[in-house]
Amino acid sequence: MRILILGGDGYLGWPTAMHFSARGHQVQTVDNYLRRRAHQEAGTDSLTTMAGSLPDRATAWREVTGYTIGVTEGDLCDWPVVESLFSDFQPEAIIHYGEMPSAPYSQMTREHAVFTQYNNVVGTLNVLFAMRDLAPDSHLVKLGTMGEYGTPNIDIEEGFIEIRHNGRTDRLPFPKLPGSLYHCSKVHDSTNIHFACRVWGLRSTDLNQGVVYGIETEETRIDPRFATRFDYDEVFGTALNRFCLQAVIGHPLTVYGKGGQTRGYLNIVDTLRCVELATLNPAEEGEYRVFNQFTEQFSINELADLVQRAGEEYGLSVKVDHVDNPRVEREEHYYNAKHSHLMDLGLKPHYLSETLVESMFAAIERHRDRVITKAIMPRTRWRPAVPERQPVAK
Amino acid sequence: MRILILGGDGYLGWPTAMHFSARGHQVQTVDNYLRRRAHQEAGTDSLTTMAGSLPDRATAWREVTGYTIGVTEGDLCDWPVVESLFSDFQPEAIIHYGEMPSAPYSQMTREHAVFTQYNNVVGTLNVLFAMRDLAPDSHLVKLGTMGEYGTPNIDIEEGFIEIRHNGRTDRLPFPKLPGSLYHCSKVHDSTNIHFACRVWGLRSTDLNQGVVYGIETEETRIDPRFATRFDYDEVFGTALNRFCLQAVIGHPLTVYGKGGQTRGYLNIVDTLRCVELATLNPAEEGEYRVFNQFTEQFSINELADLVQRAGEEYGLSVKVDHVDNPRVEREEHYYNAKHSHLMDLGLKPHYLSETLVESMFAAIERHRDRVITKAIMPRTRWRPAVPERQPVAK
Repeated sequence: MRILILGGDGYLGWPTAMHFSARGHQVQTVDNYLRRRAHQEAGTDSLTTMAGSLPDRATAWREVTGYTIGVTEGDLCDWPVVESLFSDFQPEAIIHYGEMPSAPYSQMTREHAVFTQYNNVVGTLNVLFAMRDLAPDSHLVKLGTMGEYGTPNIDIEEGFIEIRHNGRTDRLPFPKLPGSLYHCSKVHDSTNIHFACRVWGLRSTDLNQGVVYGIETEETRIDPRFATRFDYDEVFGTALNRFCLQAVIGHPLTVYGKGGQTRGYLNIVDTLRCVELATLNPAEEGEYRVFNQFTEQFSINELADLVQRAGEEYGLSVKVDHVDNPRVEREEHYYNAKHSHLMDLGLKPHYLSETLVESMFAAIERHRDRVITKAIMPRTRWRPAVPERQPVAK
Repeated sequence: MRILILGGDGYLGWPTAMHFSARGHQVQTVDNYLRRRAHQEAGTDSLTTMAGSLPDRATAWREVTGYTIGVTEGDLCDWPVVESLFSDFQPEAIIHYGEMPSAPYSQMTREHAVFTQYNNVVGTLNVLFAMRDLAPDSHLVKLGTMGEYGTPNIDIEEGFIEIRHNGRTDRLPFPKLPGSLYHCSKVHDSTNIHFACRVWGLRSTDLNQGVVYGIETEETRIDPRFATRFDYDEVFGTALNRFCLQAVIGHPLTVYGKGGQTRGYLNIVDTLRCVELATLNPAEEGEYRVFNQFTEQFSINELADLVQRAGEEYGLSVKVDHVDNPRVEREEHYYNAKHSHLMDLGLKPHYLSETLVESMFAAIERHRDRVITKAIMPRTRWRPAVPERQPVAK
């Protein structure tokens, strides 16, 4: 299958490219190094080193495996880039990781918020128009986020909910309560993609993904040059990955507030499998499907406990700090999100365990001399310090 | 009250500015003449003539009434413009009409779609940041649209719906099925504004307005130079206004498809009163309110019949044409939208009648030599002609 991977230089994009390439698919990637630039500006970096730019990584991949991964260095907001990609490559599937993916980044300043929404909304609009006009039978596999839903007081369904109201019934988009201006941008994308499927007959699967953890996949283990990035800073790092790194370097785990915040989580190897399942079982013409892509729910406190226990076995002394929550979010809430669609397609989850956490400790230890400690504590606040406003969290 | 009117040169913005000014409020307007430029590019125009640019209109207003309307010529996407406006004027209320308001415009080309979403989303984000940092107690009265809801098979509530699901209950944003990429941009705005209220404690009222008709208000009648614009072309004209003009010039009424499309409608004088009621009764700190702003529901066929009957009394011979529907929408559907919040605040509707339609005929006749006939027939199609796609209307 001809598979176009948007954001092919990223934490998930690069392993996804290798995963499909290793299975005989024709893979083309595109990236504009947005993440690398954001790190450079902030003076932070990935824990792991990467083998140069995306073409360098693709070259290493070809040397070792004999498979080719095509590379375009360009911006999805730049229409000629998108137009050429679709005209030349004629993708059958588009895996869309090509967005600014950080909630704290979007909350830093007005400029960051505007950039995040512009970048994500316009890049995705360009992709939808390219599909409509240049590859109308292709299938968009879009990475959304469970964060679009927020924390409603009812069970979270997979994208749609049947609502019975005043004696009538309809199946409608599940209401969204996004928790940052980044998450709002993902809700905007969902609205636009749903429209494009309804009105233009496009095919799309929106994968509302949970928090991904892990550092290695089947392909990254083949050669050190195949390593993917690993972010642990307050802007791009995510909960479990950050905790594992903090444990290794002896930094107290940074639990935000009470720590009752509950979310869906999954192993990076399950991400690859979910994306593969969605791609190999495409949506119908005009169909907009939503799969909730995670395997288990945890509260932050549960994750901190797990890392602490695994640390003890591993010989690390792990402290837990409840730091002032920089976000505006509920710290104790109901949470029950459905996630059966990908299981029905054949997903066999790799569940979280102390053993997995210990293997992450080991992988992190190999790079511990690269850790930039100042990047760890949260500095980006959801509400600015001045003027003082009261939180009105939903 | 210090009232800032975004989009003060428009069909509703200018009469709103006069309405508040005539009632003793301190009014500042801003506009970048987006609508005037779009007409120039398309070779179309307002039916009515306007007294020059916005400063000219404000000058005429001061000469006749003694009241001052402040004017800024600038773009809401240009942060320094927004920052100065908020710093200098310190608004207590912001009436936000300042967007690209046309569904067909957004569906013309990729460039039009991207511009519409960029313009509306970024302009509104700038306003939200300006409120947060420069006028945190001000109240945003945002013009949304009933078109955000689409045509669900259940009653449409005002912005939120209480959902009972698997034994639990929550009051959540009403699901949206926007019918164009313009309508999608309004849904994006709603998502962002709701976020800003929840997280930053801002105050906002989102007025999901129906289709407005009418050409005169209390203030436009005072002096010919106070006339507001009146659009009848396929891009900026709306259903009843277009039908009235078509009847006057002897053009068959352009009913799209079967004509069962049902929407909420209101008289322009009720728009002004609704906006005034929302402004004088502001939302609480952190509150995001949604009012459905219309007074009556009609199907397109019902409006065509009414215009035909009024035409007969008036001495016009009115034909009705069912033209190929350029949009992708349901032409027969359930529609029942709630609209009690503004009535509860004291709205006394001006209902649609043959007399009102006849008064519109008379007003239009005074300008009939200005009609550009080529602008009337719909040309903008929701689905491009090639490649041929089947509609998958929800």
